[in-house]
Formats: sequence, structure tokens, C-alpha cells
Amino acid sequence: MQQIVFIKEIDKLKYILRKSKLFNSNRHENDAEHSWHLALMAMVLVEHADEPVNMSKVIKMLLIHDLVEIDAGDVFLFDTPTRLDNVSAETAAAERIFGLLPEDQGQEIMELWREFEIAQSLEARFAHALDRLEPVLQNTSNKGGSWKEFNISQDQVIEKNSCIHQGSQSLWTFAESLIKECFQNEDPKKAANLEK
Amino acid sequence: MQQIVFIKEIDKLKYILRKSKLFNSNRHENDAEHSWHLALMAMVLVEHADEPVNMSKVIKMLLIHDLVEIDAGDVFLFDTPTRLDNVSAETAAAERIFGLLPEDQGQEIMELWREFEIAQSLEARFAHALDRLEPVLQNTSNKGGSWKEFNISQDQVIEKNSCIHQGSQSLWTFAESLIKECFQNEDPKKAANLEK
Repeated sequence: MQQIVFIKEIDKLKYILRKSKLFNSNRHENDAEHSWHLALMAMVLVEHADEPVNMSKVIKMLLIHDLVEIDAGDVFLFDTPTRLDNVSAETAAAERIFGLLPEDQGQEIMELWREFEIAQSLEARFAHALDRLEPVLQNTSNKGGSWKEFNISQDQVIEKNSCIHQGSQSLWTFAESLIKECFQNEDPKKAANLEK
Repeated sequence: MQQIVFIKEIDKLKYILRKSKLFNSNRHENDAEHSWHLALMAMVLVEHADEPVNMSKVIKMLLIHDLVEIDAGDVFLFDTPTRLDNVSAETAAAERIFGLLPEDQGQEIMELWREFEIAQSLEARFAHALDRLEPVLQNTSNKGGSWKEFNISQDQVIEKNSCIHQGSQSLWTFAESLIKECFQNEDPKKAANLEK
């Protein structure tokens, strides 16, 4: 049963830690938990897609979207140079990991992953929106979380996450208000004034 | 956006530890990682269902099947008295957690969870088969893993996992051979003889 090799291999995603942390927590999230959370977000937020999407396709896309990080690692959203450098490593990872499956299944998952990466289809755009929304929810629940830890400005956060609106205008309106509220509350100058 | 409360609440599944451990590892698996792994197993093993199943329904069922453990906790497969005692706690948990969603979504997920628990439909039987198969793969890769740790016999393992055949005869044939091979290799008498 060739799939068993793949099933054992993907266990490694549970060791890939993201920059962001669980809600109200200091514990880093791993990629497997993250993928699970996004898939469930797709189930309950699908009505917010700007146009009707194939929910099952979005879920499958989210379940597999980070598997390449087993080889290529997680790169912080705000580390643009490394993200660009990492493209060929991710492609090689996709070929190796999806190549563990029977050929037809490997190709199917490769196509799904490419569709996610290209981010053009309705499903891929909605999947990306959720992939960005989860850390917004986490960081705003963690008083700035990884944004604060790595000194990321409000403008940078808005720039990097505004692509949420390409999948869902309503989720972006919601996310943007959370981001602004978070930076307002965490603004060091404001905090200093409050202490006076 | 009422779903956000639910999305934050289910983060707690990442803290619920199972008895079984990751592959070739001493690190306990948590319920969120486990649910992700099962959903991906459904994607690649669906051809092994005895009768054609709705794969997307199986995936959704697996994504939500353990959410009740946020309140009711994980109970070891071989602890039958606690499993029976826990039924009402799990039902209360389902009502509380799915009740955080808008009513129509909450009811839909409740129905999916009940279908999984009753384990009668084709999809629920296949989902259960995968839920049992994963720890078989883990424990056999961990030289007996939680079976050895809690002194579970081969007969008990076979009895508790034979329900895999209700979803997939071929996966059960495969799992049974792994179990027997594992117990043969880990048999203390045999190990003693080998040392002579």
C-alpha cells in the first residue's frame, strides 16, 4: 500500500513551527494544527467568499498547502527575500513529497498545490484569505503577537494581509478593523500617555 | 461575525493530548494534528472504502469528530468503562461547542458528529476505520507504543480495532498483519530467546 509511505512522511509537518502562536498563548503553532484550523474555518466561513466556492476543494487545498514546508521550512510572512528564494525549494519539496504517492494521486495533489500557489482561482483566493486571517486572529488575541515580537508596523501588516480582500471583502473589512484596533491599543506612545 | 467565537474556542483542541505518539517518536500527538492527519488519510485512502463514499463528507466528519474532547477529554481506546461513562459529557460538549455557531451551522455539525458517533453510514464507518488505523500505524512504528506502555495484549488490540473491517476490508487485512508482526517482534519471550 504505497500511500502508507506518504502517510508516515507527512507526520513531520507536526514538527514545523510557525512564527505565530496559539490564541492567548506563548506556544508556537505547528503546521499540522494550522492546516486543521484553516480547514475548519473554511467549513464555517464559506458564506463569506465573495463568489460561491467549492468548499470541499478549499478544504483539500488547505489540508495540503503547507506540506512542502517539511523540506523547505516555514518562512515568516514579512521576510520577503527569503520567501522569494524559497520558491525553488518548495517546488522540489512538492515533487519529492507528492511523488511518494501513486502517480495519479501525486499529480492530483500537485495540481491542487500549484493552484493554491498561483492564487488565481476562486478557491485558491479564498484559501489564501483564511491562511492570512488565522494569524490576524491569533496576533490580535496575543496583544500584537509575532508582529510586536518582530517589530512589524501596522502599514506592513495591512500591506501583507490586504490580499484577504481578493477572497473575501467582508473578511478583509473585519480583519482590517481588528488590526487597527490592535495597533491602537499596543501603540507604545499611547501606552506612555496613559501612564502619565 | 459569530463564527469567530467558535474559531477561537476550537484552538483548545491543540492542547488535548492523545495516548498515542507521533511516528518513531516519544512526543504525544494532540487532537488537532490527529484530525488533520486523518483528513489527509481520507484523501489518499478513499479507494479502500468497501463501497464508494462521499470523500468530502468523510473529511468534514474527521475534522470535527474530536472537538467534544475540548470539554470531555481524550479517553484511551482500551478504557471501556470510562468511554461508556463519557458519553453524556461528550453530548453536553457537542451542545456547548457547536452551539457557539449560528444555529443552522451548529445543527449541521451536530448531525455530522452524531452520524460519526452512531457509526452506521458508509462515511462514518470509513471515518472510524481511519481513526483506528492511524494509531495502529503509529504504535507499530513505535515498537508497540501505547499498547506496550499500558500492557495491552494482541487479542485486545485486535478486538478493539477489528471494526476497521466495517469500513474497509483491505485496510483491516493490512492493519491486522501489522499488529501481528508487531507483537511477534515485541514478544518478551521471543526477545529473551534471541538473546540466548
